[in-house]
Amino acid sequence: MNRSITQYLKAKKHLVDKTLVSLLPPKEEYPASLHRAIHYSVEGGKRIRPILALASCEAVGGSVGEILPAACGIELVHAFSLVHDDLPCLDNDDFRRGRPTVHKKFGEAVALLAGDALLNLGFELLLKSGKTSTQIRVIRELSRAIGTYGMIGGQVAELEVDGKEPDLPKLEYIHSHKTGALIAASLKIGALLGGGSPKEVEELFKFGEYVGFTFQIVDDIMDGEGYSLLFEAKGAKEEAERLTVKAKEHLKPFGKKGETLAALADFILNREE
Amino acid sequence: MNRSITQYLKAKKHLVDKTLVSLLPPKEEYPASLHRAIHYSVEGGKRIRPILALASCEAVGGSVGEILPAACGIELVHAFSLVHDDLPCLDNDDFRRGRPTVHKKFGEAVALLAGDALLNLGFELLLKSGKTSTQIRVIRELSRAIGTYGMIGGQVAELEVDGKEPDLPKLEYIHSHKTGALIAASLKIGALLGGGSPKEVEELFKFGEYVGFTFQIVDDIMDGEGYSLLFEAKGAKEEAERLTVKAKEHLKPFGKKGETLAALADFILNREE
Repeated sequence: MNRSITQYLKAKKHLVDKTLVSLLPPKEEYPASLHRAIHYSVEGGKRIRPILALASCEAVGGSVGEILPAACGIELVHAFSLVHDDLPCLDNDDFRRGRPTVHKKFGEAVALLAGDALLNLGFELLLKSGKTSTQIRVIRELSRAIGTYGMIGGQVAELEVDGKEPDLPKLEYIHSHKTGALIAASLKIGALLGGGSPKEVEELFKFGEYVGFTFQIVDDIMDGEGYSLLFEAKGAKEEAERLTVKAKEHLKPFGKKGETLAALADFILNREE
Repeated sequence: MNRSITQYLKAKKHLVDKTLVSLLPPKEEYPASLHRAIHYSVEGGKRIRPILALASCEAVGGSVGEILPAACGIELVHAFSLVHDDLPCLDNDDFRRGRPTVHKKFGEAVALLAGDALLNLGFELLLKSGKTSTQIRVIRELSRAIGTYGMIGGQVAELEVDGKEPDLPKLEYIHSHKTGALIAASLKIGALLGGGSPKEVEELFKFGEYVGFTFQIVDDIMDGEGYSLLFEAKGAKEEAERLTVKAKEHLKPFGKKGETLAALADFILNREE
């Protein structure tokens, strides 16, 4: 992997981690079990979504410092989705990021409420970046991306195929909604807060849709998920490569300013964890 | 009960019900199980919180039509809290409003996700009322009211006392946070969107804090909840009456324009369901 993108990821992750902790309610404050669960939920993430938002902001010439709180808000929304997804009534996962899941450590009730609080806090952090009129667009964008026609819709679609082999349109629906929508929104939100033109915002959103799709295929390949089998016939990895090429086409208008995003797309395609 | 307030409640409930259904994703749209669960979640509510928001808006001379979507957003957030509260890992309730709870009817996974979607949709609806700058204040207010220092904090506090007898400060914390915060926010949001002055907004918020507290005490009396016993020593109903008097003191600056809110406070004090 490109050495400079590794350094970029490391530097930006550090920035996000530091900001995130500073914006969360302190662990020791009442109710401490809830606040500890919230901190635990966000520990150890790769911060792909906020980093994509920051890079998108940079691609349109915006200032990263300004949008850091909103980028952290996106990470909280991602964390919310993981905490609820891991619960016994959904994926019933005992481990995540090499540690017990939130409900295994804090109990189901606290995990449920910590997830709710993370979603709520995510919206709150979006109000800490950008001008008022942009904030409204950003909140609308996030809400659309995670709603019943977005991420949550994708989670329900996945429930419906549980145990069965989904057909290709259903699989694409799940991928594009469950994972793709929030990733595409991250890029759009970064571009909006960075002051991008409508055309730039639209191109980065499309870039994000392809990257989000790629992200989920690579995840499925790594997990050996049943429903990547459909792709294995035509080659899941080749499909991911094809989508990355499509993604990068939307970076052309940005010239050199799109290079970091292109390198991030390659990173997402080639990552092994 | 005062006949005119009964009619006011009926008329406003009708308005809220109609607007609510028009703003929800249609039941038949994909994923239909999720959309059906969302509709089911909001059916049959008394709409106390949105009606308080509408009355607060009227008390400051605002127009009800303008704030209806936001008032419905508040009701969705209330519905979210009920759906999650009813889940097996929290209250484990099988019935609400005389019907099976959402997870009993649609399964736990869909209920969890429907709750998430209701919270998200609640924020979205707040963006359909008022001017941009007011919307930001309204979102911040709602987020604060339901967050870890508000409603969700109150839910965790209640978890902590489960089975034990809470002391009075803890009980007051639970009441004021779990129920009071969203009711007080409803009044504040109505006043903000109605164009109230800072002083008016503050008075209506304080009115809401007392009314919210009263609401929960009356609920506990009706439920025969263990932790209203502490109040029974000094008389839970007398305490609720005292709080209602305190609430109404904050309506004085509104003169005749505060009469509907005063009648609503009496309704909340004297309701029997």
